[in-house]
Amino acid sequence: MRYVYLRAFCTFVMIHLGAALDNGLARTPQMGWNSWAKFGCGVSEQAVLSMAQAIVETGLDKFGYQYVVIDDCWHGPSRNRSTGAPLADPTLFPNGIKKLADEIHGLGLKLGLYSSAGSMTCARRFGSLGYEEIDAQTYAEWGIDYLKYDNCYNEGQSGTPLISYNRYRRMFDALNATGRPILYSMCNWGEDQPWNWASTIANSWRVSGDLTDNFGRYDDRCPCTSMLDCKLPGFYCSVARIIDFAAPLGSKAGTGGWNDLDILEVGNGGMTNDEYITHFSMWSILKSPLLLGNDLTSMSQDTLDIITNDAIIALNQDPTNSAANRVFSRLIEGGGSLSLWVGSLVNGTTVVAIMNTSSKHQRLHLSFDEIFIDWLPARTFSYRVFDLWQKTPSKAGETLDFSQWTNSPIWGGDLGIRTAALSGIDVGVHATRVFKFVPW
Amino acid sequence: MRYVYLRAFCTFVMIHLGAALDNGLARTPQMGWNSWAKFGCGVSEQAVLSMAQAIVETGLDKFGYQYVVIDDCWHGPSRNRSTGAPLADPTLFPNGIKKLADEIHGLGLKLGLYSSAGSMTCARRFGSLGYEEIDAQTYAEWGIDYLKYDNCYNEGQSGTPLISYNRYRRMFDALNATGRPILYSMCNWGEDQPWNWASTIANSWRVSGDLTDNFGRYDDRCPCTSMLDCKLPGFYCSVARIIDFAAPLGSKAGTGGWNDLDILEVGNGGMTNDEYITHFSMWSILKSPLLLGNDLTSMSQDTLDIITNDAIIALNQDPTNSAANRVFSRLIEGGGSLSLWVGSLVNGTTVVAIMNTSSKHQRLHLSFDEIFIDWLPARTFSYRVFDLWQKTPSKAGETLDFSQWTNSPIWGGDLGIRTAALSGIDVGVHATRVFKFVPW
Amino acid sequence: MRYVYLRAFCTFVMIHLGAALDNGLARTPQMGWNSWAKFGCGVSEQAVLSMAQAIVETGLDKFGYQYVVIDDCWHGPSRNRSTGAPLADPTLFPNGIKKLADEIHGLGLKLGLYSSAGSMTCARRFGSLGYEEIDAQTYAEWGIDYLKYDNCYNEGQSGTPLISYNRYRRMFDALNATGRPILYSMCNWGEDQPWNWASTIANSWRVSGDLTDNFGRYDDRCPCTSMLDCKLPGFYCSVARIIDFAAPLGSKAGTGGWNDLDILEVGNGGMTNDEYITHFSMWSILKSPLLLGNDLTSMSQDTLDIITNDAIIALNQDPTNSAANRVFSRLIEGGGSLSLWVGSLVNGTTVVAIMNTSSKHQRLHLSFDEIFIDWLPARTFSYRVFDLWQKTPSKAGETLDFSQWTNSPIWGGDLGIRTAALSGIDVGVHATRVFKFVPW
Amino acid sequence: MRYVYLRAFCTFVMIHLGAALDNGLARTPQMGWNSWAKFGCGVSEQAVLSMAQAIVETGLDKFGYQYVVIDDCWHGPSRNRSTGAPLADPTLFPNGIKKLADEIHGLGLKLGLYSSAGSMTCARRFGSLGYEEIDAQTYAEWGIDYLKYDNCYNEGQSGTPLISYNRYRRMFDALNATGRPILYSMCNWGEDQPWNWASTIANSWRVSGDLTDNFGRYDDRCPCTSMLDCKLPGFYCSVARIIDFAAPLGSKAGTGGWNDLDILEVGNGGMTNDEYITHFSMWSILKSPLLLGNDLTSMSQDTLDIITNDAIIALNQDPTNSAANRVFSRLIEGGGSLSLWVGSLVNGTTVVAIMNTSSKHQRLHLSFDEIFIDWLPARTFSYRVFDLWQKTPSKAGETLDFSQWTNSPIWGGDLGIRTAALSGIDVGVHATRVFKFVPW
Repeated sequence: MRYVYLRAFCTFVMIHLGAALDNGLARTPQMGWNSWAKFGCGVSEQAVLSMAQAIVETGLDKFGYQYVVIDDCWHGPSRNRSTGAPLADPTLFPNGIKKLADEIHGLGLKLGLYSSAGSMTCARRFGSLGYEEIDAQTYAEWGIDYLKYDNCYNEGQSGTPLISYNRYRRMFDALNATGRPILYSMCNWGEDQPWNWASTIANSWRVSGDLTDNFGRYDDRCPCTSMLDCKLPGFYCSVARIIDFAAPLGSKAGTGGWNDLDILEVGNGGMTNDEYITHFSMWSILKSPLLLGNDLTSMSQDTLDIITNDAIIALNQDPTNSAANRVFSRLIEGGGSLSLWVGSLVNGTTVVAIMNTSSKHQRLHLSFDEIFIDWLPARTFSYRVFDLWQKTPSKAGETLDFSQWTNSPIWGGDLGIRTAALSGIDVGVHATRVFKFVPW
Repeated sequence: MRYVYLRAFCTFVMIHLGAALDNGLARTPQMGWNSWAKFGCGVSEQAVLSMAQAIVETGLDKFGYQYVVIDDCWHGPSRNRSTGAPLADPTLFPNGIKKLADEIHGLGLKLGLYSSAGSMTCARRFGSLGYEEIDAQTYAEWGIDYLKYDNCYNEGQSGTPLISYNRYRRMFDALNATGRPILYSMCNWGEDQPWNWASTIANSWRVSGDLTDNFGRYDDRCPCTSMLDCKLPGFYCSVARIIDFAAPLGSKAGTGGWNDLDILEVGNGGMTNDEYITHFSMWSILKSPLLLGNDLTSMSQDTLDIITNDAIIALNQDPTNSAANRVFSRLIEGGGSLSLWVGSLVNGTTVVAIMNTSSKHQRLHLSFDEIFIDWLPARTFSYRVFDLWQKTPSKAGETLDFSQWTNSPIWGGDLGIRTAALSGIDVGVHATRVFKFVPW
Repeated sequence: MRYVYLRAFCTFVMIHLGAALDNGLARTPQMGWNSWAKFGCGVSEQAVLSMAQAIVETGLDKFGYQYVVIDDCWHGPSRNRSTGAPLADPTLFPNGIKKLADEIHGLGLKLGLYSSAGSMTCARRFGSLGYEEIDAQTYAEWGIDYLKYDNCYNEGQSGTPLISYNRYRRMFDALNATGRPILYSMCNWGEDQPWNWASTIANSWRVSGDLTDNFGRYDDRCPCTSMLDCKLPGFYCSVARIIDFAAPLGSKAGTGGWNDLDILEVGNGGMTNDEYITHFSMWSILKSPLLLGNDLTSMSQDTLDIITNDAIIALNQDPTNSAANRVFSRLIEGGGSLSLWVGSLVNGTTVVAIMNTSSKHQRLHLSFDEIFIDWLPARTFSYRVFDLWQKTPSKAGETLDFSQWTNSPIWGGDLGIRTAALSGIDVGVHATRVFKFVPW
Repeated sequence: MRYVYLRAFCTFVMIHLGAALDNGLARTPQMGWNSWAKFGCGVSEQAVLSMAQAIVETGLDKFGYQYVVIDDCWHGPSRNRSTGAPLADPTLFPNGIKKLADEIHGLGLKLGLYSSAGSMTCARRFGSLGYEEIDAQTYAEWGIDYLKYDNCYNEGQSGTPLISYNRYRRMFDALNATGRPILYSMCNWGEDQPWNWASTIANSWRVSGDLTDNFGRYDDRCPCTSMLDCKLPGFYCSVARIIDFAAPLGSKAGTGGWNDLDILEVGNGGMTNDEYITHFSMWSILKSPLLLGNDLTSMSQDTLDIITNDAIIALNQDPTNSAANRVFSRLIEGGGSLSLWVGSLVNGTTVVAIMNTSSKHQRLHLSFDEIFIDWLPARTFSYRVFDLWQKTPSKAGETLDFSQWTNSPIWGGDLGIRTAALSGIDVGVHATRVFKFVPW
């Protein structure tokens, strides 16, 4: 009965949460792989195909990773001079994008492409500003399933929500007009508060400058202390800073429209295993799209274990579609903080994460009063608690049937039934503990 | 003679205060009940009628609560496909809104409805952006008396006062064109400084993100530290924070146009009695609309005592229409503050409130020099001082004849005549003391 | 020779300073009297005439006070219903404004009027938005010499410099079209950085919310800590706060266009004599218009001594037209600061002011290195130093022949010739010392 | 092999860096001389020619200084009344600008001119707003090679990137239409984030208010603490403050489009030699245009040594076109900071600069982990390190053949081969040490 009661509560809460674009796509945050971190402007048909094959071979597709996204630099030296249509680089993509899409589709995957809502892309290839219709039409003809749409060289067309909205809306309308379902991934770096207006025109929107493969370093190239009105999103933003930026935005994410925290750096070598676990856990519970950025053809077991932890992926793909909320953030002497994050899941279950960005080990006692701030009755229930990072990795895809998954105790270490509080929680340096609370 | 002198002074000061929309409505802040906190998307004809009946049965209407406002989710699945007119949900409102309005009117009450100045309402029902005329016309035909007009899914139409003004003006013009007096309650969460431009087009305007049933907790979902240029008003804003947000805006409120601090949480269980007293007192002296948000069919005596304290309600409905000003706010060690609020009332009387948001009991000595900062002569007068929360609750409505009320000593505990200072004021944790000063 | 050298230097520096509207008016900051503080909405023909006569009788006109400005509330209940022309209140101004202007002109003075760039004035009389041409034309026909143009009820037309500029430009064009020279005094409270764009359309522009008759109290109704991007200029701003707001704006003032720090409060009773001296001194060296706000028919000798100190007035009216710059501001323990202000005057002379806003007496040693930060050679000169507040008040107007004045040692106490430093400067609580440095 | 590896890395990184206008000009930051600091409004044909001749005589042209830029005040009293074309002052430029351009060209140099995107220039000469086409056409006919385009009297046309972009774009289009390559140097003082939008329309853009000849003093006339959203860029900004402003903007500079930190003050007397070295070093590695502002006809040897240090100039003109990044900035007790700056150079070499803005001598140990934050492998290499300010000044121009230069050990003091760290770095008060790291 409690179960039912909680479920009713959650449904009620969901109503006031953000909800977004109804093009049938990104019902849960999109998952896949993006070419930039690994290949940059060296991307090619060969590179893309090898990664797509690696997805299938490693079984990553069974975990939900389905989009293979070609980032900047696929472009030929110019558009088709008579039609204005975009042309791919004939050397890098000798068989053309359409052929590549066919092959990707043949693998059961989907293909993404990149452009910029400006006169040029960030790498100074031709941009789509003023060419929205011909570009969208061509992408559709090529069989493209996903567009990452950047913000470089936008010719001053930013500064108020309306100016940015109008610019990004043009491509939304153009994509819609093609009739082909193309996931629309806005990348305007959080300028002009896209979380306030993008949900009716896009499936996801970046919320900050570019992530770098570093856990917590401040970098002058990512100079804003908040993204709420940042005039220089920049790049070289660390994991901990982007989590900080995204913390107040959770309610803006919802079915069909997500806060994009940027491509994952898991496996790229700049962080410790615990840091990557924090990175992947937080991206998941904040409902960010999960686009891998590492080399899928040579992954360590540690990397694979992280990106295929289906208990964590399930948090990201949970149909409740409710991002976790930061309940508190306590500054730790010497720098960094200890923060509590709580989010609603299906069937009245709850995710509880504790993140430690300080350089000191932390031990924590957490009362249910602290955890369940939004709804008083929940504080009085008992819960069976599972530690989602203690789990034995399941066989690929085995547990991704959500109806089964949510009723099955495959969520890692069972910590037993708890009432009133969760005690003695150890959180290592730059680590994150993630628990699932099941009303019992 | 002093009496007359003070009155002249107050009239003079009023001139420079804000003053607003001249549609004949909200001459004092509107009062009533709103469906969201109690029913959310479960609102129905039955629910609304039961609350309306409870208003009459408990005599709340005699205290001024007259608007019954249906918030989000009254909508059918779509507009009338041929005319574009809005349609109510046929299951929730089987007899239609017009019939319901008749019944509400039959009870001597007025009916309010909700929409959003966007493509969808916050709960993703059809919005009014682009449908202002047909919607206003339909509301008028239904006999609607009040429109709460939200800000969700506004398609990027915010960011400067002019953009927001134009969007909200469209509905104002449409309501005006119907010929029916419909109180227009703007709800754009304080974006783009509505206090600077809404008073000529609306009867009230929200000044912040949504209130939550909590006294003072900081919540990441309400991230701004001030509303003067907040880009993410959010929700889960506590009582103390919204008071803080509203403090500098008092002069913007005036006859016909009010700063809306959001629906009251009194009686919803998340605060102590003293906290609810603070909540109700401050909303009253800041001239916020007083929309109850609790279940009127099952109120505790404590709740009823608060919302029917007519000495406090009279502060809110005082015809001087001057919001109290925060004279000082002193930080208390350990968090929170002790603040003094002073406002002009009819007949040269003055309201003096002391609010303690700290977790420590406070004792205060208050000189008239501190209280009467704006007008030197007032410091030298003597006053009979009344404690407005010591009063014996009056029989419903008995004292709401303002002409009588303002001349009658029914204002609670009479503390006698004071000169130069008010000493030994005890203010409990999260409590507020409210005094009326009558020149003697 | 040094003399000449310095003069050349100053001319050179002047070039980069702000310079403004070329309608031939306000070559130096305008001086006069404004009705608001004394009469508010009780202003009348009688009131205005009595003040005009007092100006002449007390000889204030000889010191430069020439504009008599009627603020808000001169309006009749409505415009002329057929022509749309503004009408004065027939009771308050029984002989009409034109007749009053004639009388004012007959006294050798000039008449100012007030309106708002909005749908209503601040006191809710009819505003000029949309009526710019008919209003300007009528003012000209009435013989008006000065327009104070306010910002109330502007219908959302603010938020970017361009929106505000366009709104205020409409009245500028309308005034120009009349052919009558009418000093145009913009009053948009510093919104949207008027110092950056008003100088080509207005003779002065307010830089902050309204001044109150208080030296340094923080008031919530004037909530911004800087005016550089203030979204709520407010009112009840104290003298010290407005000086703080104006400090970075000095270079924006220049011939024909001035930073307006608001009407003077000297003589209104809320400050000490030293505080009023600070107020008048700083307004003067910051080149604010000097509009008296007190009752001219009953002034104390102290008040008269301040507002007729022609050594100080001469700083304000100095043809160099260069506002003083705040060289440093040192925080004093316990609150307030000690600040140094330096400005260029004619003939290579310099004004040096030291202001103490703290509640502690200050003694200061000032090296020429500190005073002459902008031009190294000036540090090596010798100067005869005069204390401008030690002067025996001159007979009215006697010294206002600038050609004579600037060559004559009537500048108060002669402190002798100084080299390298000025030592032992005592500055009382809330007091300001003002020195004139003459190269010797 | 390491060499090649590093080069590949740098190429890869470059792709994401800003890159700009493709008018064939300013492939590296422009160098030259500007008339304002020395001549102000006293500029003349004679003055310009004497400076141009001094450039040739001192051999400065061989170091890259080629543009001679006439700043404000070359204008006649009005435009040509019939054609609207600009006219030069016939007294100051008796032979006209065209003749002067011919002579400048005859010296192997190029001629720059100044105007403002406003109704007047800063010195109140006629501006180009509304006269873009006739002005650009005339400049081209005169043989002008460079336009500095200021921001005074812009009639409110600022406040959002789009408004500013449109205003500056008009002149860009006009210059383009002439067919003559004219370097376009925008000077809007960093308003509305030009680094985000100017690179497609201009060759450089100022990033702050005007520099003054002072190392680090705070001045109220340059009031912003950051330029990311500064509403009053002002002037009298010190060297240290402008460096601070420019620190986060490095990635926005690139081939053909540069962050302009303002005209150099080297040799003008307000700073020590170490301060001028810091000034010149930092301008160079931040890829600012290098426009001399001193009197070229009477330079001290110290001044000449600084501005002709070709090892430093080569950093500025390095074809990698990558501005240095501030890796850290450590506050020093008593004020100021010690900061590390690192930038990529050709052939996989790296510039490492340490700046000390405090008033205390600093000694520093720098590990390669700190230096090479962006790319892990670089930390493990060995480098031959050169101290670029220990070099014997080379004969003018001798080393400016980049192909030779970058392969030749003429980079000052050879500190030998270093691994893992650079130890014992002494940095004097307000001094900057600049090292070149060559993989070995």
